[in-house]
Parts: sequence; C-alpha cells; structure tokens
Amino acid sequence: MKNIIIASTSTIHGGEYLEYLLPELSKHFKNCKTILFIPYARPSGITHEEYTAKASLAFAKINIAVKGIHEFENATSAIENAEGIFTGGGSTFVLVNELYRNNIMTVLSQTIKKGTPYLGTSAGSVICGLSMQNTNDMPIVYPPSFQTTGVIPFNINAHYLDPDTQSKHMGETRETRIKEFHAYNTIPVLGLREGSWLDVKGSKILLKGNLSARLFRQNQVAEEIESETDVSYIK
Amino acid sequence: MKNIIIASTSTIHGGEYLEYLLPELSKHFKNCKTILFIPYARPSGITHEEYTAKASLAFAKINIAVKGIHEFENATSAIENAEGIFTGGGSTFVLVNELYRNNIMTVLSQTIKKGTPYLGTSAGSVICGLSMQNTNDMPIVYPPSFQTTGVIPFNINAHYLDPDTQSKHMGETRETRIKEFHAYNTIPVLGLREGSWLDVKGSKILLKGNLSARLFRQNQVAEEIESETDVSYIK
Repeated sequence: MKNIIIASTSTIHGGEYLEYLLPELSKHFKNCKTILFIPYARPSGITHEEYTAKASLAFAKINIAVKGIHEFENATSAIENAEGIFTGGGSTFVLVNELYRNNIMTVLSQTIKKGTPYLGTSAGSVICGLSMQNTNDMPIVYPPSFQTTGVIPFNINAHYLDPDTQSKHMGETRETRIKEFHAYNTIPVLGLREGSWLDVKGSKILLKGNLSARLFRQNQVAEEIESETDVSYIK
Repeated sequence: MKNIIIASTSTIHGGEYLEYLLPELSKHFKNCKTILFIPYARPSGITHEEYTAKASLAFAKINIAVKGIHEFENATSAIENAEGIFTGGGSTFVLVNELYRNNIMTVLSQTIKKGTPYLGTSAGSVICGLSMQNTNDMPIVYPPSFQTTGVIPFNINAHYLDPDTQSKHMGETRETRIKEFHAYNTIPVLGLREGSWLDVKGSKILLKGNLSARLFRQNQVAEEIESETDVSYIK
C-alpha cells in the first residue's frame, strides 16, 4: 500500500528545516531506524554530503538516522532495501538528471508503489507526479526526459504562489505558466502552497495543512480545493 | 555586421505592447518595409495568427508591416530573405522546440550574424544567448536541446527580478537559481531588468534603458552594470 508524504516545501517562513512536518514524519517513518536520503537536487549547489548532514540534523530530533544514497555502491539496491526514503528539494532539473544518470527512476517509482514510506519536499515532491513539467526551477542541466515517477496520477506545482496584484513586474504569473502548460498537455496540475502536503495512503490522497490548494485542468477554470479533501479523483 | 536589439520585456508596466521601444525600433528597422515575425513562443498559448496580429498592430505605428513565419511554406528561406526579424516572448521551451522542429535554429543564428536586423523580447532575447538555461519559464514541452543561437557570447535572464526582502515565500530567488546554474556551468549570465535592452552593433554590445543590469559569473560575486556600458567584454 502506497505510503507517501508530498510536501510543497521543506521549510515554512520563520521555521527550521522540516520543523513543521516533524510530528507527521514521526508517524510516517515510525517503523524506520534509518531512512535513505536522496540529496541529488543540491539546493544552492551544496554537496551531497552537506545536504545529507542537514537532513540528518532534522531527523535526529525524531530519532531517525539518515544515510545518503551517494554513500552506497549500488543505488538500485539502496532504494530496494530502504526502510524509508526522503528526497529533498533544490533543482528539479539536477535531481531528475541524476535519477536517470544513475538509472534509478524506475526502481524508485516501483519501490514507492510497493509501499516503502516516502517523503518528498519541493523537487522531491515534483517527481511524484507524471512529469516534472510544472517545476518552477531553472533548466540548469538537460535531463534525458521530463518524465518522473508517476506515483500519483497528476502533476505538482510546489511553492504555489498566488498572483501579486500589486506587482508592476510583467513576467508571467504562476497561473499563466500552468495555463500555457495546458495549451500542450492534458495532465492535471495541483498547486500546493507552502505548508500544504498530500498524504497518500494506498489509493487515498488527502490534502493536509492549513491552506487550500489550487487545481488546474485543461480547458477548465482553476478551482480551490479545501484542506482534508480526498483528491484521489484527480486524474 | 550584427545589428540586434535584445530586450528584457516587450511591455513595461502601464505601457502598450512594444510602446517604450518604438522610437528605437523605428531606427533599428529603418530599411525594412516588412519584418518577419516568429510567433512560436505563444504567450498564454495564443495562436500564431493572433500573436502575429498583435505584433502587426504595434509595428503599424512605425509603418512597418509584419508577416508571420507560419505564413511561409519554407521557414528557412523566409529567414534568409527577411529584411528584419522579430521573435516575440512567451514560452522559451515552446519557442526553442519549434525552432528545432522546423530545423531553423542554425539558419536563424547565421542570418543574425550576417547582419539582418533582429529584435528579441523576453523568450526571443533568451535565444540570443548560448543556451536557454536561464529562462524563467516552465518546462511545458521537451525541446531536443537547450542550445540556442549564440549570437552573443553569454546568457540572458530576462525580466530579472531582485529578491523581495519582505517576502515570506521560501521558493528560490532569481539570484539563487542563477547561482545554482553556475554550480554546473561556466557561461556568464546577464540579468536584464524590465525596461533594459542590449543594443548590439557588430562586436559592440551596449546596455540601454534607465536601469542597471546584474552580471553573474561562476565563482564571482554578482555585480551591477550601469546603463550605457559596453558589455562586449563579457564572455
């Protein structure tokens, strides 16, 4: 049975890394002594070691050890044998590129579908969708494909941001960009605001956190989804 | 001799489409009765016809006719024979994908280098760089490559936006994203604020408009470049 937390962000304003999620994570990973960390997204370009140390520090607060996937000789078996898996945020392009380069996109998808508890934040959440095409990140590397794990049947826009009505900036709003996506694609997109997450248990997908989320579908007006809604109907 | 205008945006806050640039464009395209418009970037997913009509309306004010590249049977000869060329903004991913799909990325580069007057705005400016890797756009389609025309020896970040120090949003700032780019790439990036443009005449590249621009290089602190500076030293 799938057991996944898909969080918009690792950190909310004024909080520590993962702090707001720790009570959830304590339950989510309750049978894990050690979880596998995938640090490939390298936020601000930090190393795999530095990023793993950061994740370790947060998980130490709930008595869970963290081991980086780069510490294993065989990334595939590291995933297959993990008690739990966490993929951190950073650059979705770098993350997806590394998952393909290490030939583990498929095994990651299969392992999550089999029920290994998984946590994604930001880029680590984007890869839960069918494709990474609704990332906000800059295309700083060229991945061999935009397809991701598809452990949920729609796409995620993390750090979803409402249009700033006071802004004099003429660049596209997030909503405009997602509408452009739907000029060429039919995949629904769920905009998850910072502090929101999806709790996936088997075929049930609950929206959690205090905020509503914004659902975008091709040729339809965007709609607000309230917290605690089962969004497993979206496909 | 190269003759290029590379504008951050087509439209500044409170102005009409291309309005702030028309005096420049009138000089830039002074020998053109008709210019070729490349509408591939399709902002908000509008059609090639709609986008060409919009460009025509603006250029009519300076008595220049506009013909869309989609109106030609042979896109390559349309570019080779154009009196002047304008590539509009929208999705850089869609634009680059279409340039490759129509097999005209190379001929566009060669034609601009030979001296056909060129105007780019936003996505149409990003493609003047070595690669499209500093676009702000969402990867809504998967282009066969991120390489672009390279008519200037660095990359452009259009609609450059300074960090909002009041924001409680935890998503990456523009500067952070460009720094992440430099964890993997050596190409310099010039952040062009809205209202700025580069005026390229042969090997000279002048920064124009009222604002400074922000230059990012690998392993260096970002620096502000004043308007009217010759930035042809950047490579």
